[in-house]
Amino acid sequence: MILDASFHHSAMKKLPDGRRRGRPDITHLFLLTALESIVNKKGQLTVVVHTRNNKAIYVNPETRLMRNYTRFIGLMEQLFEKEIIETDEKILLQLQHDITLKEIIEKTDADMIMGFSTQGKHVQLPEYFSTLKKKKCPHLLCIIGGFPSGDFQCDLTAITQDIISLYDDMLSAWTVASEILVNYENIFLRCP
Amino acid sequence: MILDASFHHSAMKKLPDGRRRGRPDITHLFLLTALESIVNKKGQLTVVVHTRNNKAIYVNPETRLMRNYTRFIGLMEQLFEKEIIETDEKILLQLQHDITLKEIIEKTDADMIMGFSTQGKHVQLPEYFSTLKKKKCPHLLCIIGGFPSGDFQCDLTAITQDIISLYDDMLSAWTVASEILVNYENIFLRCP
Repeated sequence: MILDASFHHSAMKKLPDGRRRGRPDITHLFLLTALESIVNKKGQLTVVVHTRNNKAIYVNPETRLMRNYTRFIGLMEQLFEKEIIETDEKILLQLQHDITLKEIIEKTDADMIMGFSTQGKHVQLPEYFSTLKKKKCPHLLCIIGGFPSGDFQCDLTAITQDIISLYDDMLSAWTVASEILVNYENIFLRCP
Repeated sequence: MILDASFHHSAMKKLPDGRRRGRPDITHLFLLTALESIVNKKGQLTVVVHTRNNKAIYVNPETRLMRNYTRFIGLMEQLFEKEIIETDEKILLQLQHDITLKEIIEKTDADMIMGFSTQGKHVQLPEYFSTLKKKKCPHLLCIIGGFPSGDFQCDLTAITQDIISLYDDMLSAWTVASEILVNYENIFLRCP
């Protein structure tokens, strides 16, 4: 059973870090934003979800994720049980155990690794991405927090080249994803 | 009870226009994208949801909408029963009956009314918004379809000044909303 703070609130109070857990709704909303973006439709996005227990969920960009939350939870329960969700032709979701965020990053060929946090330096994303484009850095790896409060548990500075902030206040994971995806499309995927 | 195609599928098959109905999940995802956007946090957004039965839902921009879908459905059922959701200090959601999309538009002071449809002319939103900014048209009214398939039931050309398309393929309502909101923020809400 997938923990959901909306339904298992009292049980979760006793868990360590209970306030930061049981929010698969954040993952669902983030994935719907990412997978249905124009950047993804153009085949330019890879999504990995890293969990607090060092598990990674690899998401096939062609996955048509259910919009209904209850069905999404069913899918996640199936994934954690079978470790793979596949159709006849392809693997849609795959679960990997015992992998840190750092190890996930090391497997990619990103030109630039950036984290998003209110603690980062304030930037305007269009100008920031334009500079990266001029430096011929099109492969960006963006780390977005998917927890309801607080900051990253790991030391972001040790695994990123830059930590940036898009707004003074906390933003939801899917708002940060939208900002990244629309600006990436504007700057990197269109003719000058 | 709010119709939900995920749960009431067989009952809905008998309803007229059944394939276009029972998708409160689209409204939920759209509202979370809109209300948690930077444009809304800066106080520059008004959201109205118009239903197929000519009802309007006015959403207070300060509403902190529940992310959990099951709770959102509970809220909508309460809204359709009581016609208003309020706290001690303010009205969060209000339902109005017997109002057409045209009548909603006429009550606003928009400089420019645009619809979004794959049938519209292809534009690049940054350039399109820049032109509107130069023409001193900051108050945009954007009409986004919230149905799972097909096109608008009403004649969009009769109620809009422009119909535009952002991509060759269908986009989800929240993807269109993201494109509008991030580009609006970039063009209209930042110093040149």
